[in-house]
Amino acid sequence: MDTIPNSLCLSPASDLTVKSSAVRCFFPIRNRYSVNFRSSPTRIELNRNGFSGLSLRPMRGKSWARSAQIMDQSASKTDSSAPTIVEVDLGDRSYPIYIGSGLLDQPEILQRHVHGKRVLIVTNDTVGPLYLDKVAEALTVGNPNVSIESVILPDGEKYKDMDTLMKVFDKAIESRLDRRCTFVALGGGVIGDMCGYAAASFLRGVNFIQIPTTVMAQVDSSVGGKTGINHRLGKNLIGAFYQPQCVVVDTDTLNTLPERELASGFAEVIKYGLIRDAEFFEWQEKNMPSLMARDPAALAYAIKRSCENKAEVVSLDEKESGLRATLNLGHTFGHAIETGFGYGQWLHGEAVAVGTVMAVDMSYRLGWIDDTIVSRVLAILKQAKLPTAPPDSMTVEMFKSIMAVDKKVADGLLRLILLKGPLGNCVFTGDYDRKALDETLHSFCKS
Amino acid sequence: MDTIPNSLCLSPASDLTVKSSAVRCFFPIRNRYSVNFRSSPTRIELNRNGFSGLSLRPMRGKSWARSAQIMDQSASKTDSSAPTIVEVDLGDRSYPIYIGSGLLDQPEILQRHVHGKRVLIVTNDTVGPLYLDKVAEALTVGNPNVSIESVILPDGEKYKDMDTLMKVFDKAIESRLDRRCTFVALGGGVIGDMCGYAAASFLRGVNFIQIPTTVMAQVDSSVGGKTGINHRLGKNLIGAFYQPQCVVVDTDTLNTLPERELASGFAEVIKYGLIRDAEFFEWQEKNMPSLMARDPAALAYAIKRSCENKAEVVSLDEKESGLRATLNLGHTFGHAIETGFGYGQWLHGEAVAVGTVMAVDMSYRLGWIDDTIVSRVLAILKQAKLPTAPPDSMTVEMFKSIMAVDKKVADGLLRLILLKGPLGNCVFTGDYDRKALDETLHSFCKS
Repeated sequence: MDTIPNSLCLSPASDLTVKSSAVRCFFPIRNRYSVNFRSSPTRIELNRNGFSGLSLRPMRGKSWARSAQIMDQSASKTDSSAPTIVEVDLGDRSYPIYIGSGLLDQPEILQRHVHGKRVLIVTNDTVGPLYLDKVAEALTVGNPNVSIESVILPDGEKYKDMDTLMKVFDKAIESRLDRRCTFVALGGGVIGDMCGYAAASFLRGVNFIQIPTTVMAQVDSSVGGKTGINHRLGKNLIGAFYQPQCVVVDTDTLNTLPERELASGFAEVIKYGLIRDAEFFEWQEKNMPSLMARDPAALAYAIKRSCENKAEVVSLDEKESGLRATLNLGHTFGHAIETGFGYGQWLHGEAVAVGTVMAVDMSYRLGWIDDTIVSRVLAILKQAKLPTAPPDSMTVEMFKSIMAVDKKVADGLLRLILLKGPLGNCVFTGDYDRKALDETLHSFCKS
Repeated sequence: MDTIPNSLCLSPASDLTVKSSAVRCFFPIRNRYSVNFRSSPTRIELNRNGFSGLSLRPMRGKSWARSAQIMDQSASKTDSSAPTIVEVDLGDRSYPIYIGSGLLDQPEILQRHVHGKRVLIVTNDTVGPLYLDKVAEALTVGNPNVSIESVILPDGEKYKDMDTLMKVFDKAIESRLDRRCTFVALGGGVIGDMCGYAAASFLRGVNFIQIPTTVMAQVDSSVGGKTGINHRLGKNLIGAFYQPQCVVVDTDTLNTLPERELASGFAEVIKYGLIRDAEFFEWQEKNMPSLMARDPAALAYAIKRSCENKAEVVSLDEKESGLRATLNLGHTFGHAIETGFGYGQWLHGEAVAVGTVMAVDMSYRLGWIDDTIVSRVLAILKQAKLPTAPPDSMTVEMFKSIMAVDKKVADGLLRLILLKGPLGNCVFTGDYDRKALDETLHSFCKS
């Protein structure tokens, strides 16, 4: 081919490789959609179906939202302002995660994903004062047709409820937003979950964008479309699977994050290593001091690798029929702590850390892992200054009664994520000896 | 072909016609899915793509939920206990609407669509005393593993709000229902919309079944997956698109329906004729006295033909990007009446009837229809004892301010469904002379 177009409309079931000087992308095409490249590629390889499956046409508008770009290390080093992009591959609901420093100073990233002329920013009274003006500026600079509304919710897991959610609906309706508006979640996991569920439900669904500002949200909750609120009897029991238009991770926002919040997010980073990425876990064991010291390169790598793990799992099992449940290692025990101890007493990651220790303890009691994994998990959580035992007030009965309403119960049977085999392997199962669960609960609770 | 299989796995974009002695089905295949026939067809015609696009394989399990069967009149007369089935074709979210007399006495219809062992019936304090026991019996007879919970909400549009919805979540969570449960909506449109939205949101989505017991719900609201609740500032502003497993229309439930409710449902039946089915409208003009007298055959025909119209529109445009909006003829004016006059003061169909008259008046002022359509609409609504003018308390300003938050507003422009051309044709447009809207509002309001 003499001329290579910079946009393509692809047929399903093609595997495509695109090469240019510093960029190499590979993406399986599962559904018909368009791909646009920021610069003309030097070579296009279609690995299946031949070119007969391709039709070439220009893209409308300036969007290249469907492009997927996985930079190699040398590429990302040569151009520090270009974001790393991890694609969440969900057919016509696919979207990019942009990761990098200073992304909120690059208006074109956000603006290309805004639908319509009206934006509602949902944030809280901690993050709002720090970043609301910056985000509003990024959304409107050079784009005077766009108008911004905002709603500032009280900060904290204890406000992740229906009463607070109604404030978002009230604001959207009083502002007369219509279906062609965009909701923007600016904050941590609570804001992302609530704004996402509001976007899923307002007028039966409007577009939304995630701007996560905590490690927890950047490595986990903003990716994959789980949205929702808590019920007084359990966490995240009311919600929707609803995917954003994009996720914008500006790593600079971590500069203002309290240390306890920082550590809380590492609980999820550690999780990815344990359930599916032993090499990443080993990297963490070496680099936890750098992460705790907020070394920008270490943080960016941990976020990117976490997002890649999450994106891959979500692409394979969006609605959690099996594989995706493994991302909940430690969460069943952890949710029980959050619910029983009171929402907001502990941060989510702190509860997950203890839940992970309990799941690992139970896996060991079942004879599914050796004791080196148990000690390595304890060691890395301690490096991250995370707790490894539940609050004294948690009893065996509290764990049992709260875990009985967990979303992973099926036909009355509680299924758990447990480690099994060498580091990096886990199972999601209801087929375990109940005695091991009892022993774990009794060994971690005083009554 | 010597042997014709009784199930097929079909490729997209095939048009298929199947014939057997008393059954003829036609369905366009838009997404890959399996089709199963209750009895072996005598002939299969694939109208496009040839047989090369077909692969033949047996269906798993006993389900024939994906089958589509459109009986001709002679067939439906020969076997009165077999339901007529209208298929809503939405790829892997396709489902059947069963229509017939005595269907709640045929447990196998409901039972084949129940997922898991636990069922939550959502009903109200009017319908519950009449049919809850019957439905519970149909779900459990010969099926002792299934257990039933129920929640009885207060009856009426004014309770279609978040506080009442929370009662459904409370019951589901307190009963420790898990993801493998099934919600059953037993009642009219309010119950169907609320139960559907609860099912969409509980644990991020569980299965549900619609058992509509009013004409309004049987011909319209139970079909197509629109679910939601009202906000004090507008109707149905919070909700989800969420499809049921099936819809079971037992026409016997209409025997207990108050006359005002009966007539209210006919407003939607008339709508189908006006927007897309002139022949059906003409049938209604002749048969409205039989419908008002609850003649079973007339009712069954009106419900079937309405469901066919709705199913076709929903299949073509599930998320209302265009065509589906035409089903809202009269609803923008109607919703303003419901919101402004107070939820529950008028029935939904009563408000839609007036809204239809106003939309027709505006269409005539625009010169888009001739005056015979105006007079025929007034005549048929009067036959159905439906109102044709808004309540005295509705002012032009009330209409304007409430219509400004309608879901069909896009980038600030109110789009309306208006009739245009011969009977049975309409448009969904924001491109109309604002003067005509003003004139219509002023001619129907005293101030």
